[in-house]
Amino acid sequence: MKDTATAFAPGSVSNVACGFDIMGFALQGPGDRVTVRRSSKPGVRIAGIRPAGLRLPEDPSRNTAGAPVIAMLAASGAGTGLDIEIEKGLPVGSGIGSSAASAVAAAVACNEVLGTGYGPEELLLFAIEGERIASGATHVDNLAPCLWGGFVLVRGYDPIDVVHLHVPENLWCTVVCPSIEIRTEEARRLLPQTIPLCDVVAQTGNAAGLVAGLMMSDYDLISRSLHDRIAEPARARLIPGFAGMKQAALQAGALGCSISGSGPAIFALSASESAARRAASAMSDVVRSNGLDHQSIVSKISQPGARVVGVNE
Amino acid sequence: MKDTATAFAPGSVSNVACGFDIMGFALQGPGDRVTVRRSSKPGVRIAGIRPAGLRLPEDPSRNTAGAPVIAMLAASGAGTGLDIEIEKGLPVGSGIGSSAASAVAAAVACNEVLGTGYGPEELLLFAIEGERIASGATHVDNLAPCLWGGFVLVRGYDPIDVVHLHVPENLWCTVVCPSIEIRTEEARRLLPQTIPLCDVVAQTGNAAGLVAGLMMSDYDLISRSLHDRIAEPARARLIPGFAGMKQAALQAGALGCSISGSGPAIFALSASESAARRAASAMSDVVRSNGLDHQSIVSKISQPGARVVGVNE
Repeated sequence: MKDTATAFAPGSVSNVACGFDIMGFALQGPGDRVTVRRSSKPGVRIAGIRPAGLRLPEDPSRNTAGAPVIAMLAASGAGTGLDIEIEKGLPVGSGIGSSAASAVAAAVACNEVLGTGYGPEELLLFAIEGERIASGATHVDNLAPCLWGGFVLVRGYDPIDVVHLHVPENLWCTVVCPSIEIRTEEARRLLPQTIPLCDVVAQTGNAAGLVAGLMMSDYDLISRSLHDRIAEPARARLIPGFAGMKQAALQAGALGCSISGSGPAIFALSASESAARRAASAMSDVVRSNGLDHQSIVSKISQPGARVVGVNE
Repeated sequence: MKDTATAFAPGSVSNVACGFDIMGFALQGPGDRVTVRRSSKPGVRIAGIRPAGLRLPEDPSRNTAGAPVIAMLAASGAGTGLDIEIEKGLPVGSGIGSSAASAVAAAVACNEVLGTGYGPEELLLFAIEGERIASGATHVDNLAPCLWGGFVLVRGYDPIDVVHLHVPENLWCTVVCPSIEIRTEEARRLLPQTIPLCDVVAQTGNAAGLVAGLMMSDYDLISRSLHDRIAEPARARLIPGFAGMKQAALQAGALGCSISGSGPAIFALSASESAARRAASAMSDVVRSNGLDHQSIVSKISQPGARVVGVNE
């Protein structure tokens, strides 16, 4: 019987310009670590959150890592108590799937400690409980790539239908996170509730085109498809200097550039590591000129998803 | 110098459930034949339309075969006159790309007679002139598969971006055309002008899923993706017995079933020829029980597009 397990879950980019609520991919680099430990005291507790000073709920039922563990413990019928320690490697409210990573890492670690042997499809359903708390919504376009890794399409939600897409060998991503926070709930309120038919035709064409471009390793087609008619027009104004960063990325040779998730992070896709690094540099210059601190990530797209990184019997 | 050329252009299925205005594929079987002949009399004329009795305009500027020829003759600067003979193999207003086939066949035949040597991208732009007359719109989701053959995605319209998709070896189509006419213009007027965001998410997920399913030859994914949240809900009531035909096709084992173009034709996709023939039989029974004559087509999906079938020097 395992006493303690620690899981790591990576950051992720969702929406991917033309794939609002249906596409996402995992990042290499920062992520969240969650440790779940058996306790003789019944129930679930948040035993620690690092780094100190983050404004995250310590009530486990309101915490994105706590909610999946509560649900899994209840489903297992195990009599044990569980303590949760969270180590946030991803900036909160940054748009690179911070709440998804905590929820997924908690579910993966809890699965290991309880010995429940759930596969990723089942873990996803528990992790959704965490995402629901973070954003009020049950979209899985961060959760699924965080869990499985790689580039995923969420074909549908009833039931959840996750499709793993082929990724071209030389596709790289740049993410720049300006140091401002946007709450996912707030960003969702800005979205239009209805979309003009002409924009729907453009969006479906681009979403279908992006999938075709990925499957055929056609970088030009990927580039032509990376346009967003839904979220970017509504949300761009939340991000100081967005237009300038996008222009800088494209001028540096990126295939496309848009908002990561609900922002403020901005991602660009490029056809080589060197192009992704040039885009990072160009985008960073613009963020700095707007007086904002930031973090930047350059990552290949085909990255592994969440995994157990430590166990104590 | 060529005196006469005849071109054949096949019928096609557009929209394909989740690909409103962006997807279509060519059919094997019926199509339109257009003959273009040099004349010493300047200008363009419709010299004949067969079968007799069709209510098609004889003014070439208002005829779907005439308009592309007028545009091509003007662009070529040739001093010749041109006579056009149209042989309609496709039922008019049926939803299987009848106007597109006449426009494409006319453009292909005219290209041969004038010796203009245009490639398909350029011929598409001339053929659009015919589609504009037929429906008031410049969508190319029938024109492109009719011209190139196979299964195409129209990624975008500005500029027109046609992507040729891989088609699984055993994918077959059934089309049933009840003998009623729906005018494309009328069917377009029924469409909602704005779409709720939740339906947009579902539609983009399905369009992206269909492309992934085609590229990976994943018949189950194709089946899960063949749902329409835009046109089918608005147009189904134009087609007597639509719900019964769809149910019959699915019960017969089809992967999916929806309206072909703006109807009244209904298509189903199946994972084998025998399943496509079973769907044809089941759908035909329902049409007959509704007291309607009909025509049915069973076709593989990877079919050639328009081509010159006869030339006289």
